[in-house]
Amino acid sequence: MTQGTYVDKEFQRDTTYIEDRITSDGTGEWPVEPGRYRLVVSRACPWANRTIIVRRLLGLEDVISMGVTGPTHDADSWTFDLDEGHLDPVLGIPRIKDAYLARFPDYSRGITVPALVDVPSGEVVTNNFPQITLDLSTQWREYQREGAPDLWPEDLREEMEAVNERVYTEINNGVYRCGFSGDQAAYEAAYDRLWTAMDWLEERLSTRRYLMGDHITEADVRLFTTLARFDAVYHGHFKVNRSKLSEMPVLWAYARDLFTTPGFGDTTDFTHIKSHYYEVHLDINPTGIVPAGPDYSNWLEPHGRERLGGSPFGNGTAPGAPSEGERVPAEHNPLLDESGMVRTR
Amino acid sequence: MTQGTYVDKEFQRDTTYIEDRITSDGTGEWPVEPGRYRLVVSRACPWANRTIIVRRLLGLEDVISMGVTGPTHDADSWTFDLDEGHLDPVLGIPRIKDAYLARFPDYSRGITVPALVDVPSGEVVTNNFPQITLDLSTQWREYQREGAPDLWPEDLREEMEAVNERVYTEINNGVYRCGFSGDQAAYEAAYDRLWTAMDWLEERLSTRRYLMGDHITEADVRLFTTLARFDAVYHGHFKVNRSKLSEMPVLWAYARDLFTTPGFGDTTDFTHIKSHYYEVHLDINPTGIVPAGPDYSNWLEPHGRERLGGSPFGNGTAPGAPSEGERVPAEHNPLLDESGMVRTR
Repeated sequence: MTQGTYVDKEFQRDTTYIEDRITSDGTGEWPVEPGRYRLVVSRACPWANRTIIVRRLLGLEDVISMGVTGPTHDADSWTFDLDEGHLDPVLGIPRIKDAYLARFPDYSRGITVPALVDVPSGEVVTNNFPQITLDLSTQWREYQREGAPDLWPEDLREEMEAVNERVYTEINNGVYRCGFSGDQAAYEAAYDRLWTAMDWLEERLSTRRYLMGDHITEADVRLFTTLARFDAVYHGHFKVNRSKLSEMPVLWAYARDLFTTPGFGDTTDFTHIKSHYYEVHLDINPTGIVPAGPDYSNWLEPHGRERLGGSPFGNGTAPGAPSEGERVPAEHNPLLDESGMVRTR
Repeated sequence: MTQGTYVDKEFQRDTTYIEDRITSDGTGEWPVEPGRYRLVVSRACPWANRTIIVRRLLGLEDVISMGVTGPTHDADSWTFDLDEGHLDPVLGIPRIKDAYLARFPDYSRGITVPALVDVPSGEVVTNNFPQITLDLSTQWREYQREGAPDLWPEDLREEMEAVNERVYTEINNGVYRCGFSGDQAAYEAAYDRLWTAMDWLEERLSTRRYLMGDHITEADVRLFTTLARFDAVYHGHFKVNRSKLSEMPVLWAYARDLFTTPGFGDTTDFTHIKSHYYEVHLDINPTGIVPAGPDYSNWLEPHGRERLGGSPFGNGTAPGAPSEGERVPAEHNPLLDESGMVRTR
């Protein structure tokens, strides 16, 4: 759930998370241990979508199980309303809030996804999403699939941290700053910030296949989940409408390149995405009506990015099809086939 | 002001207008008479925009004066808040409602523009917009400029009435039906109706330069004012987002062809248009924040419609530049030059 405050009518996200980490060095409170933790996500949420992608790219599905909430939470919490009896089948709770309260009975901050939950105790371990994906890459290396790509390569980290910071403040959070502006002036300032950064990306990606060069990294995952929501939601709902993403030639080709790469488009649930934003934010969409558009078929137009060279997974390989229980339903993403993979055109 | 009712959650426009006509046959209550009547419009309103275009194409500016209200009316009436002292300089009234009340002291229907007002009495004559433009074409012929086009040619009327009817119910009013839907089901039905008609137009205009063939007619004027507002407002605000107009190759080229023709783009005030919809409809946009986009520069891309033959004005000619007092301010439409005409690219 999006919590924040306003300073001079500018929306500022509450970024106080539970900063515990699951680590592999044998000294921490939460050791890496297959089967012990459950990743709770909503497919609607861009921050959670990052963890779904990284878990899948690294092949950690059998090591860290996944619980999926419905797209529209109540005032209190994301809820397991997709599950039988409206209870998470592993944790046995109706709301992710219950895992927060199990650990901190007087927890008063935002109840957010993604959240990693310790299954034996039922307590939330962390909801610190920027760290969760990095730890999946570095702490869980022993359990990653053969061919798992290195999404957080050491030689690129310094530059990547700067890129990630700009993508986070200006793009990932920048769209929310536009949509949740407290007045016209704050909105216009937020809009200018966003599009300055969109133009920077358009330029940067004109000579690089991926954000950090020849291969997919954590930086691409973080950018992708915002781009996947851009035309479907942010363009209209958050008024980031200088143009659609599909009108920016470079960034749109880049987004399509990723979308058609295993792990990206096949984790994108357009129905949950639209449902979440339009039904939950009744302060900016009081009717709760969810737009029927856009037409998604343009995602499968040839992107032509191969001419920039590179390869998505470097020395690694692409993940296979998702298991049956983890597929995005084809009726939620018409670009998927019956195996849950993005259709070839 | 948009008044209507709901039947099964579907928005139905109140179409009861004052049906008096200004006529040239010498028998009516309101005879054609230069200088006697004042056309009151808002540049924001698509129905009023029709009359602005037709009056300009026919060169009736010196015969029927024009009063322009501000884009955002109060709960009661469109108001003359752009004028000095917030009074129309000819009628001396602050609200167009006053001209309605001067004629009908207990007038209870919608206070709408366009409205034709009898200047000597200050009484509204008619707000029956579909008839107003036809009467400018047929009843005021004696006073039209040399080279005025025939927008309502007799040999095309039967077919044109059918086209106009479909454009009105499915497109002009169809976008409102989407935006003012009372629930999700009504919205989705309205959306399907709209896009069925948009596809029909895309097909029809693929082989015809203009809606009725080789020359601009009343039918094009009626379609244009909705298309000019499509990406700027309706796409996001009314959720008609299968695609932007700019993503429909034929209809978008047709819209650009008209836009760059004198009388069309030069009567389009994007600032008033956006301000009106986003600031007045607080029931669907409670923040009142007006989007900064879209970028309008794509309107000037070459449209290539000349290959279909035809000519905009047939045996007639294009109107010249608007008089200084009637120009759309360049800061309201960045595609205009200092003479108030659409820039050549």
